[in-house]
Amino acid sequence: MDEPQPRLELRDLAQAVRELRARLAAHRPPEELRAELERLHPADAAFVLESLPPGERLALWKLVSPEREGEILLEVSDAVRESLIAAMDSKSLVAAAETLEADEIADLAPDLPEEVIEDVIRALPQEERERLRAAMSYAEGTVGALMDFDQVTVREDVSLEAVTRYLRRLDELPGHTDQLFVVDREGKLRGTLPLAQLIVSDLAAEVRAVMVPAAVKLHPEDRAEDAARAFERYDLVSAPVVDHFGHLVGRLTVDAVVDHIRERSAEAQLAEAGLSGEEDVFATVWASFRNRWVWLAVNLVTAFIASRVISVFEGSIAQLAALAALMPIVAGIGGNSGNQTITMIVRALALGQVQSGVWPKLLRKELGVATLNGVLWGGTLGLATWAIYRNPALGGVMALAMLLTLLLAAAMGVAIPYVRARLKRDPAVGSSVLITACTDSGGFFIFLGLASLLLL
Amino acid sequence: MDEPQPRLELRDLAQAVRELRARLAAHRPPEELRAELERLHPADAAFVLESLPPGERLALWKLVSPEREGEILLEVSDAVRESLIAAMDSKSLVAAAETLEADEIADLAPDLPEEVIEDVIRALPQEERERLRAAMSYAEGTVGALMDFDQVTVREDVSLEAVTRYLRRLDELPGHTDQLFVVDREGKLRGTLPLAQLIVSDLAAEVRAVMVPAAVKLHPEDRAEDAARAFERYDLVSAPVVDHFGHLVGRLTVDAVVDHIRERSAEAQLAEAGLSGEEDVFATVWASFRNRWVWLAVNLVTAFIASRVISVFEGSIAQLAALAALMPIVAGIGGNSGNQTITMIVRALALGQVQSGVWPKLLRKELGVATLNGVLWGGTLGLATWAIYRNPALGGVMALAMLLTLLLAAAMGVAIPYVRARLKRDPAVGSSVLITACTDSGGFFIFLGLASLLLL
Repeated sequence: MDEPQPRLELRDLAQAVRELRARLAAHRPPEELRAELERLHPADAAFVLESLPPGERLALWKLVSPEREGEILLEVSDAVRESLIAAMDSKSLVAAAETLEADEIADLAPDLPEEVIEDVIRALPQEERERLRAAMSYAEGTVGALMDFDQVTVREDVSLEAVTRYLRRLDELPGHTDQLFVVDREGKLRGTLPLAQLIVSDLAAEVRAVMVPAAVKLHPEDRAEDAARAFERYDLVSAPVVDHFGHLVGRLTVDAVVDHIRERSAEAQLAEAGLSGEEDVFATVWASFRNRWVWLAVNLVTAFIASRVISVFEGSIAQLAALAALMPIVAGIGGNSGNQTITMIVRALALGQVQSGVWPKLLRKELGVATLNGVLWGGTLGLATWAIYRNPALGGVMALAMLLTLLLAAAMGVAIPYVRARLKRDPAVGSSVLITACTDSGGFFIFLGLASLLLL
Repeated sequence: MDEPQPRLELRDLAQAVRELRARLAAHRPPEELRAELERLHPADAAFVLESLPPGERLALWKLVSPEREGEILLEVSDAVRESLIAAMDSKSLVAAAETLEADEIADLAPDLPEEVIEDVIRALPQEERERLRAAMSYAEGTVGALMDFDQVTVREDVSLEAVTRYLRRLDELPGHTDQLFVVDREGKLRGTLPLAQLIVSDLAAEVRAVMVPAAVKLHPEDRAEDAARAFERYDLVSAPVVDHFGHLVGRLTVDAVVDHIRERSAEAQLAEAGLSGEEDVFATVWASFRNRWVWLAVNLVTAFIASRVISVFEGSIAQLAALAALMPIVAGIGGNSGNQTITMIVRALALGQVQSGVWPKLLRKELGVATLNGVLWGGTLGLATWAIYRNPALGGVMALAMLLTLLLAAAMGVAIPYVRARLKRDPAVGSSVLITACTDSGGFFIFLGLASLLLL
């Protein structure tokens, strides 16, 4: 534990940022700022850098000591990492990467220039080099991409006494070592020895006598999301990762799982709002534009299609302009209701709670909810329309269009995830855009079509 | 470790559900199903129950042995828990609760009938009763509501030898015990003794010599979200919870933190889609309706206001019905763009990255992005409008309206979180609804207003 302790109370980081900004603004001597930075835990230093506008951020980054650059780069968000790496030359990047372990270098690799990675690989000892290659070979979102190589292994035929002596010879135990992994001569996983078990057992006993079967064994190709569910469900701190022959190749720890969960949840939240990736709050206008234009373009296309649907009925609208004022209500409520249905089902699918036989049941339920909503809100709006426009037929069309649009939204809210699940596509991607496109165009068509048929 | 191990491979749970359903359908003898259920880890049994439609779910629930009901109730989702509790009588509920620890009972308490809680409290030993009262007294979303009381404490003036002997006398160490807490005679926290340290140290040494200062100390009133950030940032497995006098009152462990993060992220996702809470995928139509009506009603009100804005311009629309077809594009893109801005800022606020001085900088940046988007998409749409309607003036109005609506969306996307942060209100709640209401009504007003002024 030679790194600075996180001595800050939870809400004091904002204070640290303010003080550092004041010192930067007052042009205090760099040694003073550097000393202040050195006292920060790497994660806290990362937070400070993320909270500073670009100019101040880079001024402070230049003061970070070279041996800490690597660990701070690991902690900052993707967007901020790019801005820091862009400000470093190849030599300092190689030096920073060399302070890290293989699995950590693999995390940075996507953001590093090609030639830096080559230099780093060349400088690594043989074993680390193979680990780095292995870690870089697993796709994002797999256990292989999250695992580390810090597992402590023991043999089953030694005494606990010998295990304890061996552990004492290690400088310190790697973080999150709650269990030792018991392997045979070929490196195959035989079981695990929880530290808690080691402490309460007779030291004369052999490992074999006190080890337990591994509760969960992961494979490097397993989906990280499934592994995260296993950690959550079984309250794990670490789990062994084995290849198809049962050889122990690494371990997954709960801190990597927590980071993964946070990242996924942030990505989902950002994607929902139409941001392609994490955005540095101080990004340039151009970088922000690139992060946002795709979804605006997609929405433009769907809005354009809806607009073409409306244009078919321009004759009706010219005769009865009230239709133009009422139609966004129908489409809007349809979109909201469809999003409720699809979100609930996509979530249940992701949790694995939807078995193949239950789809008809789900459809019936959603149509039931839509009928209830349609009668209630359709009735309410129909009456409001009647009252405002003094036109009972228009009120009737409004009520009927609401009901039909809500039924359409419910049917599409079940059908879209059903089709995507059958096609084995991830049912979450863009589901909100798809359902809104259906309910917008569908809602306009139903309302304007009914009005043209029945009123004009 | 007397509970069933999670022996299932990650993707095998769906298989278990299918098999149990088939056996239920085939009316196999209850003992057979019961034996199958007993072999499932409580978390796996909870998953199976969540994946079954109501009838089968309750049939299976009746077969769960009474001593396991409590732990399974803890594991199921809120919505499913309600359905299971509703099917139990007071006596079995009291019996189920009594198998749990104080902090676990407190987690169930909100779903239990008043008289059940009273019975449970009466049956508890004095110390547990006080703990239950304490745990129930902390608001949801605080550290107090998440902590447990399983901390193992030692004194600083004893030898590690004595500590080891003491630990051996315990049946087993509580889960997630990565460190022992060192307290003085009054129960004040003096430091912690990591197990990893205990194992590698000379047993003749005193605790005092090897203990380390607690890296993070939490208070029961701290926000759970802040504690989760600390766990994430500093890679903790457990952390002590102390009162204002420094007395150790409990501990927070990473498994509770992981559950909290998952729940918060699920809630955010559901709220985004307009669901008030977690919804059992097999809920009745009525239960689903109750979970969804609030947001539909809110959206109805905002859509109604937008509709009233349009109705002001019904005269213009009657003259030029193309306006009705084009106006949803302007409002829609404004809403999307505003949501991008507000999501990015609300997220940075939640992470604490937005200092009070940077708001003008943020506003300038967002207005810059909006200008870029406005010129690009406004220009594109203006040309498309010109081409479709052979009306250059209408194209010009479209382009100008897009630019102005995007600027409005950017300004509101910064202003709404700014005002809410100044008022110390949570800037996330309902921000999407608010911004969409602004951009809808604003977009219709800008487009139709410009058209009325310039074209008619």
